[in-house]
Amino acid sequence: MKIPVMEIFGPTIQGEGMVMGQKTMFVRTAGCDYSCSWCDSKFTWDGTGKSTAMQPEEIIQELKRSGQQFFSHVTISGGNPVLHKGIGELIRLCHVQGWKVAVETQGSFWQDWLLAVDDITLSPKPPSSGMKTDFNKLDAIMGKLDEANASLKIVIFDETDFTFAEQLHMRYPSVPFFLQVGNSDTATTDDAHLVSVLLRQYEWLIDLTACSSVMNDAKVLPQLHALVWGNKRGV
Amino acid sequence: MKIPVMEIFGPTIQGEGMVMGQKTMFVRTAGCDYSCSWCDSKFTWDGTGKSTAMQPEEIIQELKRSGQQFFSHVTISGGNPVLHKGIGELIRLCHVQGWKVAVETQGSFWQDWLLAVDDITLSPKPPSSGMKTDFNKLDAIMGKLDEANASLKIVIFDETDFTFAEQLHMRYPSVPFFLQVGNSDTATTDDAHLVSVLLRQYEWLIDLTACSSVMNDAKVLPQLHALVWGNKRGV
Ligand code: SF4
Ligand code: SF4
Repeated sequence: MKIPVMEIFGPTIQGEGMVMGQKTMFVRTAGCDYSCSWCDSKFTWDGTGKSTAMQPEEIIQELKRSGQQFFSHVTISGGNPVLHKGIGELIRLCHVQGWKVAVETQGSFWQDWLLAVDDITLSPKPPSSGMKTDFNKLDAIMGKLDEANASLKIVIFDETDFTFAEQLHMRYPSVPFFLQVGNSDTATTDDAHLVSVLLRQYEWLIDLTACSSVMNDAKVLPQLHALVWGNKRGV
Repeated sequence: MKIPVMEIFGPTIQGEGMVMGQKTMFVRTAGCDYSCSWCDSKFTWDGTGKSTAMQPEEIIQELKRSGQQFFSHVTISGGNPVLHKGIGELIRLCHVQGWKVAVETQGSFWQDWLLAVDDITLSPKPPSSGMKTDFNKLDAIMGKLDEANASLKIVIFDETDFTFAEQLHMRYPSVPFFLQVGNSDTATTDDAHLVSVLLRQYEWLIDLTACSSVMNDAKVLPQLHALVWGNKRGV
């Protein structure tokens, strides 16, 4: 079953969340059921990017061609990769190669292949995104992932987002919880300015977290790739 | 048994290693059996700082006074905290409070209380430090920590350090492995310049790691606190 692929790149590092810093290849799929106001991957769903329909075997070949012997971890991101049933076969083939697989999704859809993923990041979108979380669906998904290696990651732009994150953390208290600084300027090419803005926002988020007893076991992280490469794609 | 304490501060975040981003309090102990050329905590052992001998109970009181209800994780750093036997009692008392405990050490000494630590970071020093790792000792320590939640973290300043790290990772292949950018200017107060230097060095380290098949399952991380607060202490 074919998968619409936007880009395949790496090896580089995972700049976010539960496996931050991990050396990995990226497979970015096209298409999203959301349209977040601040989406930093709009090209995956707004018609400005071009995807290629690829068989899982072809993706494996392309990973080998571009990553050679220099990786053992593959991150499938989007868009929302959980829209695509064919990823189940891709994961199976990665595991045959001995590679681990990470997936990131907002938690709006289910696929049985999620249970085969090594590192699952669920990233429900806070109010600033303009999206609304369907908590019935999310509860069902979190329930099914009870035994999986899953974490929650919430991007924070303002205090309303932080309150949303507190509620979410209290709803699923046993799930590893990550707060992430939002990037409010995904278009700028002034990297030095972007870094200074992102580090100031990160400090603000650390301060907010420090003063919240709900967040005592949370982890607060920046987006490393935005600090290192700005808004450049494919790194 | 008293412990020589240099500073107690937080809540802030852990800027390094296996629990990067974790909200935590810090207890920094005095004294080190090493004298790394680029040590960023020289005041813990070079005579320029002042320590206070404290009972474990007093440290707990001070943690409560300054952190109030806003933490559930304590990081014990140094210097080399493993010089101090009294930390065993401190860890026990932290666990009574329901707090988790992380420790960082270069792996040159053993204390039985290491087995009670929730997150152990072993940070053998690479050649650029001017120190020499005693591999007989380290092998013995790694062996005893087989069942513990331990990781290795190597600070990298140059390619010789990277080769040292590759050898270390091959020696203990099953231990989670972290590479960290070294801070070669621990005195500057020009934060913007420091950030740009550290991010360039981080990119260099990512590139080096990308091209090393030995490092396929490594994680490459910056020091978040240096990016956010520069060389300031107590944050
Ligand atoms: S869910 Fe993710 S990919 Fe989809 S619109 Fe939101 S930020 Fe973009
Ligand atoms: S082991 Fe750590 S504290 Fe001791 S001198 Fe080296 S860097 Fe400094």
